[in-house]
Amino acid sequence: MNDANVSPVIALAQALIQRQSVTPEDANCQSLMNQRLQKLGFNIEEHFFVDTLNTWARKGHSQPHFCFAGHTDVVPVGDEAAWQYPPFSGTIENGMLHGRGAADMKGSLAAMVIATERFVQKHPDHKGSISYLITSDEEGPFINGTTKVVDLLEARSEKIDMCLVGEPSSRNTLGDVVKNGRRGSLTAHLTVKGKQGHVAYPHLATNPIHKVAPFINALTETVWDNGNDYFPATSLQVSNIAGGTGAGNVIPGDVYVQFNFRFSTQVTADELKSRVHNLLSDFDLEYDIEWIVNGLPFLTEPGPLLDVTLEAIKEVTGIQSTPETSGGTSDGRFIAQTGCKVIELGPLNATIHQVNECVSTDDLDKLALIYERILEKLLT
Amino acid sequence: MNDANVSPVIALAQALIQRQSVTPEDANCQSLMNQRLQKLGFNIEEHFFVDTLNTWARKGHSQPHFCFAGHTDVVPVGDEAAWQYPPFSGTIENGMLHGRGAADMKGSLAAMVIATERFVQKHPDHKGSISYLITSDEEGPFINGTTKVVDLLEARSEKIDMCLVGEPSSRNTLGDVVKNGRRGSLTAHLTVKGKQGHVAYPHLATNPIHKVAPFINALTETVWDNGNDYFPATSLQVSNIAGGTGAGNVIPGDVYVQFNFRFSTQVTADELKSRVHNLLSDFDLEYDIEWIVNGLPFLTEPGPLLDVTLEAIKEVTGIQSTPETSGGTSDGRFIAQTGCKVIELGPLNATIHQVNECVSTDDLDKLALIYERILEKLLT
Repeated sequence: MNDANVSPVIALAQALIQRQSVTPEDANCQSLMNQRLQKLGFNIEEHFFVDTLNTWARKGHSQPHFCFAGHTDVVPVGDEAAWQYPPFSGTIENGMLHGRGAADMKGSLAAMVIATERFVQKHPDHKGSISYLITSDEEGPFINGTTKVVDLLEARSEKIDMCLVGEPSSRNTLGDVVKNGRRGSLTAHLTVKGKQGHVAYPHLATNPIHKVAPFINALTETVWDNGNDYFPATSLQVSNIAGGTGAGNVIPGDVYVQFNFRFSTQVTADELKSRVHNLLSDFDLEYDIEWIVNGLPFLTEPGPLLDVTLEAIKEVTGIQSTPETSGGTSDGRFIAQTGCKVIELGPLNATIHQVNECVSTDDLDKLALIYERILEKLLT
Repeated sequence: MNDANVSPVIALAQALIQRQSVTPEDANCQSLMNQRLQKLGFNIEEHFFVDTLNTWARKGHSQPHFCFAGHTDVVPVGDEAAWQYPPFSGTIENGMLHGRGAADMKGSLAAMVIATERFVQKHPDHKGSISYLITSDEEGPFINGTTKVVDLLEARSEKIDMCLVGEPSSRNTLGDVVKNGRRGSLTAHLTVKGKQGHVAYPHLATNPIHKVAPFINALTETVWDNGNDYFPATSLQVSNIAGGTGAGNVIPGDVYVQFNFRFSTQVTADELKSRVHNLLSDFDLEYDIEWIVNGLPFLTEPGPLLDVTLEAIKEVTGIQSTPETSGGTSDGRFIAQTGCKVIELGPLNATIHQVNECVSTDDLDKLALIYERILEKLLT
């Protein structure tokens, strides 16, 4: 089935999926959403930074200020021939809406717009403000997207109080998991130096692979923290290692090691760096290191935003949702840095970034109802 | 100075250097030598295997059978512009003969031929046999060279009793070091397996870099043996390591580690393999491993060949030479496997495989005298 006899949520989701907006392309997704928001009284700002289209749309001027955040871009489709249905068709079959971005996160965008339309029609004089912060580079380098819009809002002292990011948070059933925070991400690019030489004359060389092995072992055995009520313990993973000239008889001059922390709010990026530097000293290593803070951790503790979200899920689905801080990063981290409360709630993430990405049409319809209930609880 | 007013040793060395015999090319070096050996009564066999010319030349049929072994091929010249004299010119300046192969080992080949000519002229009825085992792939993959000729001799039960390889063994003064053995070389290509995953979800993955680090540390801390009177302790070096997809957020599925043993006669290749396999089990690693025996160790203990060599060096140079088993591998390892006693004696190795390779003309003349004395001591 792929006809006009679908709900407004599904019709809009289909229209968005049919726009081929692989990062950083927006492919007119935002204009489609913005036309509808404009009719509701939203003021629309489109900000194009380098290669990325961003929308900042707001209705109302007062607090509390609630924001829907998300992205129109999608990851590449990979091997198109491997898809059961064309990835940009938006085909519906057996209650599933198929296509790249169906779950991540055009379905959520459609649910947000329909929920907002319904809410504004029912409550034209609602209190506070509703806004949309939409980008087209969340799946890419996230340089010209949400972070730039956040900077712009900060520069003009425009403050968001609460934000719902439409990332697909659900694991097994719609709404079973809400993200109320994310771990921080810190990456180290480490080069440990030795002295090149011939394997037959090791006394004339210093083998950096031999030097780095016990250090890596110590890194992986270190307990960085024990987490807390909201976060699992900080974890470290070595993602890349490379040393050697290719020749079997040469002791290499250096070895490269890349490792990444996913860290809780129990520790700061600076503390982690400092402890790694101490460990490097303990092992008497000569090294260069470059640190990249990919994102700071954030946490939305129980309070109005999280509470009403859990209530809304319960009311629509009957499910008692679990707040979690696990998983990867999202643009929520940029918005949270302004002091805004941030949660993430969207459909099942089982198929995201894979071939045959799809989402339940029932779930999207329910998601729109949940979003609408959240607006009602916060802004009426 | 680069004229005809040079000794027969230097003249022949020049002629050999002027033939551009970069591995596996022989460039008529062997025919030049063989013409002279034939005149002395040597029976000449030229064996061409795939891309490599080899000479097996023998004078006499009885034992003791003494063999001169060496190679006519040279390593590439690298940046020719960096050479003070053209690398194939054989220029003599300030008592030094310049050119690729001057020290490794065309100078030794010339000294062997002249020593043989003088010895045969003085002792036409010498006892035993003299042979030459010359290849043009010692600097290359050593597949179609000495090892194939050795196989051929074994197949027809032709037995060498003693062998002198002309490798440049001297460190600071001609004859200060004689090699009376070489360590074995054993290489492992190890792939340790894990389970690929996302760094944000380490509980769903197994990081092979984390698994291999303590194993490498244990490898490098293991005492494999303590060497013996003739060999330094067996040493291990990790020469290459590679793991990771390049992405910072992916735990790789496996990691590759290459390591090499230089081992003494106190341990066998099989013992080393077995101990590594035990260590892999101790660390509970899932792995693939490929072993390459590059060469077995050999040792020529004090006895007729080593004794007369030390005497001859002392008589010609006044130096008390030191037998050593250090350094890299040579074709001596193939010949030693037949049960033959093998020593290596040649000029200074300070410039080998470098730009501006050169050798003292006085040293080459003395080397010819040493070789001649060895023939006299063994075969008269």
